Amino acid sequence: MRALFWDGTVARVVDRPRPAPQPGMALVRVRLAGICNTDLELTKGYRSFRGVLGHEFVGAVEDGPPEWRHKRVVGEINFGCGVCPLCLRRLQRHCPTRHVMGILNADGAFAEFVAVPVANLHLVADAVPDDAAVFTEPLAAAFEILEQVHVRSGTDSVVLGDGKLGLLVAQVLHQAGAHVLAVGKHEEKLAVLRRRGIATVTLQNWSGAAADLVVEASGSPLAFATAVKATRPRGTLILKSTCAADAQLNLAPLVINEITVVGSRCGSFSPALRALATGSIDVRSLISERLPLSQGVQALRLATSPAVLKVLLEVSAQS
Amino acid sequence: MRALFWDGTVARVVDRPRPAPQPGMALVRVRLAGICNTDLELTKGYRSFRGVLGHEFVGAVEDGPPEWRHKRVVGEINFGCGVCPLCLRRLQRHCPTRHVMGILNADGAFAEFVAVPVANLHLVADAVPDDAAVFTEPLAAAFEILEQVHVRSGTDSVVLGDGKLGLLVAQVLHQAGAHVLAVGKHEEKLAVLRRRGIATVTLQNWSGAAADLVVEASGSPLAFATAVKATRPRGTLILKSTCAADAQLNLAPLVINEITVVGSRCGSFSPALRALATGSIDVRSLISERLPLSQGVQALRLATSPAVLKVLLEVSAQS
Repeated sequence: MRALFWDGTVARVVDRPRPAPQPGMALVRVRLAGICNTDLELTKGYRSFRGVLGHEFVGAVEDGPPEWRHKRVVGEINFGCGVCPLCLRRLQRHCPTRHVMGILNADGAFAEFVAVPVANLHLVADAVPDDAAVFTEPLAAAFEILEQVHVRSGTDSVVLGDGKLGLLVAQVLHQAGAHVLAVGKHEEKLAVLRRRGIATVTLQNWSGAAADLVVEASGSPLAFATAVKATRPRGTLILKSTCAADAQLNLAPLVINEITVVGSRCGSFSPALRALATGSIDVRSLISERLPLSQGVQALRLATSPAVLKVLLEVSAQS
Repeated sequence: MRALFWDGTVARVVDRPRPAPQPGMALVRVRLAGICNTDLELTKGYRSFRGVLGHEFVGAVEDGPPEWRHKRVVGEINFGCGVCPLCLRRLQRHCPTRHVMGILNADGAFAEFVAVPVANLHLVADAVPDDAAVFTEPLAAAFEILEQVHVRSGTDSVVLGDGKLGLLVAQVLHQAGAHVLAVGKHEEKLAVLRRRGIATVTLQNWSGAAADLVVEASGSPLAFATAVKATRPRGTLILKSTCAADAQLNLAPLVINEITVVGSRCGSFSPALRALATGSIDVRSLISERLPLSQGVQALRLATSPAVLKVLLEVSAQS
């Protein structure tokens, strides 16, 4: 099969053997896949990954238990051991020996086929088109905030960053009843939110006025200090950027202002799939480009452009 | 009156005018005061404070409303404006224009008299001796953790640091039903906890095994990375050290393991006073030395010794 492979030095579309799923795994024929900033980080050396990239996908089950055969599915990307204390608490996402699709010890979805544990599969409702379903994974990461923090109606919130994740987070908080101000650098990206009735401001025009809930989704290690300053005493700061590098930080303001910092990563797919089924979150406006898998290398390059939001890879014909 | 005064360069016992309390303030005759690490930080330049040091005290009201006259009291150290949104939420401790006794724009308690807002006074029960009541402020800071985080019975906890605050925090968590392991450098300090049935281990013998709740109370900026490593995925790390300097930090583990970091500072006095009244927390074992106010400079020097816990200043005769 064709696959976008990262060998540690260069990403190339190559021929790879079709995955031979282990017991408990399904083989999924990928239809559409999305490029995430994490994919770009991996090609800069993050986690020393080698293999087929990609963890955002929608596809159809090619081989697996009969009840799943030919179903349209998305798949959670953390493959837990299933027996450790964290897996038993349904926190497979934190299993210490987990494999992570396209990120850690597991081939990813920028390929004609990907192997996924049957336990990780979720059926996609007919009402959800492929190009919305492919956002399930990043949307679940945005919904993860509501799993970790009790967001009350009217909570005064600031979302820093108008990248893909920031735009999803702002919508999720808005839908949860929070009073959201989205801060970003790109008028045209923020426009997606304004069309949904969400207040936005460009970084240069932002007053920096503090809020009770702040989400750092800009992906910049330098934004941490800004985010701390924008968090009211006894407020909560959600950290969504995994690529935070070493930086010179002073944590004293956290203590003095009794700020709670909540690291937040992947989420459960269920709330995201429900939101996609009702159309309450606009994901399709985030699509900037669609390229065939054969142009995967160009697609990765395109995705690095600051003006671009989601780049999709069309893998197999969409029925 | 005699007072231990920090002029920005040197600490000296000097003659100072007796405070003339503003309306709403009481004049308190100090009986006993305690030296805190924050006092030592102030004499290294922290917050550019100039004035009478000291914020841990017990005394008797000399002048104020008749119902308070001659009562034995302790006093909360943050003087809020009383009218801002934070004060109205009873978070005077976070009032943006607050004065803080002996720390910020207000003279402190290492003196014969100190001025305290009447609203900040708390009566001390007869059963509580002066040398226990003087611990109300630091014990309240330990109890603050229970205001911020829901500590369930059996919560697997690690307390890093066997200084005064660490020993109080370990006892408060133990009393709340947590399963506590206290990690420190000094066998003789940890012994205070072992006598209360709390498990202890020296840093060099500690396995580093992760817990759901970790409290960083060592005061070392270098301990942050250790504390993060000791926090389980989805666990909570309480930061108690205000003197955290700039340090090279990588926040990615917070995101990957979805750790919650809670900055924690001063607390409300009520739970501390109740614990002192019942004797459920052992504070008197933390007393290393007692010196008269006239030897305040030696007392400050003594308090810097790693082997020493609490140094008390005896100010006026204890009746």
